[in-house]
Amino acid sequence: MSKPISDLAKLAGQRLTDMRAARPLVQSITNLVSMDIAANALLAVGASPAMVHAPEETGEFTPRVDALVINVGTLSAEAARSMEHAVSIARVHARPWLLDPVAAGVLTFRDDLIKRLLRHRPGIIRGNASEIMAVARAAGLAVDPVQTVQRGVDSAHTSDEAAALAHKLARHCFCTVVATGAVDVVTDGERMVRIANGSPLMPRVTALGCSMSAVMGAYLAVCLDPFEAAFSATALYGVAGEIAAAKSTGPGSFRVAFIDALYAIRPKDVATHLRVSE
Amino acid sequence: MSKPISDLAKLAGQRLTDMRAARPLVQSITNLVSMDIAANALLAVGASPAMVHAPEETGEFTPRVDALVINVGTLSAEAARSMEHAVSIARVHARPWLLDPVAAGVLTFRDDLIKRLLRHRPGIIRGNASEIMAVARAAGLAVDPVQTVQRGVDSAHTSDEAAALAHKLARHCFCTVVATGAVDVVTDGERMVRIANGSPLMPRVTALGCSMSAVMGAYLAVCLDPFEAAFSATALYGVAGEIAAAKSTGPGSFRVAFIDALYAIRPKDVATHLRVSE
Amino acid sequence: MSKPISDLAKLAGQRLTDMRAARPLVQSITNLVSMDIAANALLAVGASPAMVHAPEETGEFTPRVDALVINVGTLSAEAARSMEHAVSIARVHARPWLLDPVAAGVLTFRDDLIKRLLRHRPGIIRGNASEIMAVARAAGLAVDPVQTVQRGVDSAHTSDEAAALAHKLARHCFCTVVATGAVDVVTDGERMVRIANGSPLMPRVTALGCSMSAVMGAYLAVCLDPFEAAFSATALYGVAGEIAAAKSTGPGSFRVAFIDALYAIRPKDVATHLRVSE
Repeated sequence: MSKPISDLAKLAGQRLTDMRAARPLVQSITNLVSMDIAANALLAVGASPAMVHAPEETGEFTPRVDALVINVGTLSAEAARSMEHAVSIARVHARPWLLDPVAAGVLTFRDDLIKRLLRHRPGIIRGNASEIMAVARAAGLAVDPVQTVQRGVDSAHTSDEAAALAHKLARHCFCTVVATGAVDVVTDGERMVRIANGSPLMPRVTALGCSMSAVMGAYLAVCLDPFEAAFSATALYGVAGEIAAAKSTGPGSFRVAFIDALYAIRPKDVATHLRVSE
Repeated sequence: MSKPISDLAKLAGQRLTDMRAARPLVQSITNLVSMDIAANALLAVGASPAMVHAPEETGEFTPRVDALVINVGTLSAEAARSMEHAVSIARVHARPWLLDPVAAGVLTFRDDLIKRLLRHRPGIIRGNASEIMAVARAAGLAVDPVQTVQRGVDSAHTSDEAAALAHKLARHCFCTVVATGAVDVVTDGERMVRIANGSPLMPRVTALGCSMSAVMGAYLAVCLDPFEAAFSATALYGVAGEIAAAKSTGPGSFRVAFIDALYAIRPKDVATHLRVSE
Repeated sequence: MSKPISDLAKLAGQRLTDMRAARPLVQSITNLVSMDIAANALLAVGASPAMVHAPEETGEFTPRVDALVINVGTLSAEAARSMEHAVSIARVHARPWLLDPVAAGVLTFRDDLIKRLLRHRPGIIRGNASEIMAVARAAGLAVDPVQTVQRGVDSAHTSDEAAALAHKLARHCFCTVVATGAVDVVTDGERMVRIANGSPLMPRVTALGCSMSAVMGAYLAVCLDPFEAAFSATALYGVAGEIAAAKSTGPGSFRVAFIDALYAIRPKDVATHLRVSE
């Protein structure tokens, strides 16, 4: 059932070519901090971003998009209503969608929304290690009564610590789960791979993870298999991050070089530079 | 009545000098994606941006601004109310204003708002080709019953395809219409010019068109003639885009170089490098 | 009671080291234009930004943060409610907070909010000269009945013109007041220092002052003395601004170089390059 890893690495390169040819229309209901970088990342990889979010427009818009991305950062009551509305439409119209559970485990209002959103079957859940562990707890998959040490949006755990819960969460939700960090873990409950690319500058750029979720959502539009979409986007981000870091002197120049790298990276760069293991 | 094109090119350079001297105060009620780049573009050309949008503040603020820019991207019910309120005040107080009809023709809620906004007499309507064609349809100027192929915010048409409807729309609304693309069309229903400057990287930077609308709004404050304002801003963006592209390796570095170019460009650069035709 | 200036310059460097070690969690309820640059500036100096703003989340979140920053730009009725809610919680839970009174003196709705916020005892008020003078007037500290010449968000006064009112305001509110400009004035009503670092490109980058407020709020978490926090952040921004200006060709490249400088600057750079006087 599962492909050898060398095939996966080659596939990630091919899917990048598919993305640039398909130019999928991706609706992002995302946090206010990430609007600019998420839209620019989508444009750089060849997708067409649309930040439509009002309930008055979602009903008409979501059925036509190629993929939907929901990111719960800078949440408001109105945004929560928009998100529930959009994912319910996406489900009815069989549009694939991705959930980025920013700061899950920190706030009750947000965790309650995340639980309701999970019912609408995301194709992918992508977060940092702490967020993925918190979503698993919210889904009732951890008996650990100890409150997380997580306080804000930055992760307090490594992806390795999150791997077991990511696997459980993927099986529970019939979806692919990605826990990003120094090493990224991608699992659909059957397969699990680790990608060891990237740069320490990446968590120093605000909303870079949010922009990765947006791009991963775009891959949902060009991959039938959500695991493949998650893997391809994670591979792209890791390798582009290394290319950008080589040209940067800090997080400001890294961000600029990273968008350039997403635009210029060749499929063979992804396939060649990927460090992936099972 | 109309000036020779060589005069117009010279005029665009002179108006840039006027802009830097006047530092006009420009209110932008704009979409969430464009906030940063629109404000930075306004500052780079020498204008003073203000993103005041609340109905509680607009009534007091709009009468004092030099120009108002309305951009309907990332629309919400509340934003729609703010926009209608602001343009009604702008009209009463004779403040010039510009409409950027982002994604016109795609969503009913947005098209209905655009129709209501048009009643308040914008000085300029600026959009991509598909948006201008959709506004013309919304204004009842096209008998074509065929639904647009437009799905998101990226244009599905060339400016040449939009030229005839742009001309009709300008006459119908007594305003200047700009349809931007690989070639930009500027018309007030009497005059029509085409500007062939710019770079293919420009549509790869999110909200660059929105920032152009903001800057064009600023020109409304220093030009009595909206056609002149539209032409001057279009010329500035096209030439600055070429200067920036020469220093860029992708959309990330282009965006940085473009803001630098808006800041450093000399009036004679605009006049010299402009490729304009009737 | 007051330290010699050479000690203060050294202290500013030490506090930067403290910041990078402490990684304080800073909640920012800030304007829409500043979201990206404020979060990136916080990450660059080593703090952990959180843009949580919904009343549904603030009650649970604010008691846990290390500092709170309130910035009244792009105000809305909902944002005003969030801000009042957050500062009341910060006060009860003894969380230090900073007020950035963007465009104070221009709009009644905003000035009324600022007056209500002042009752909750900010540790620092930071604005440009015109804003600080307007807050002092709003607090009843100026008999001058003449309406300000301020129209938008850019300052119409120098910091020297604001120095006397800044001093009065600091004494009246028992807080530290910072009036930024070509020269920055920092006072707690006892001490007053002037910092003459920075670059003319700084006011050409949108929301750079807002990002300075965010970083200054982070310093509140690592300095017991608000004056020390205000001084350390002002010193950091001035010196980093000069480092960035040396590598820039306009406001676009300046912004990139500035974030890099915040990340790479060494404590001794701050102590060495600071131009401070009483």
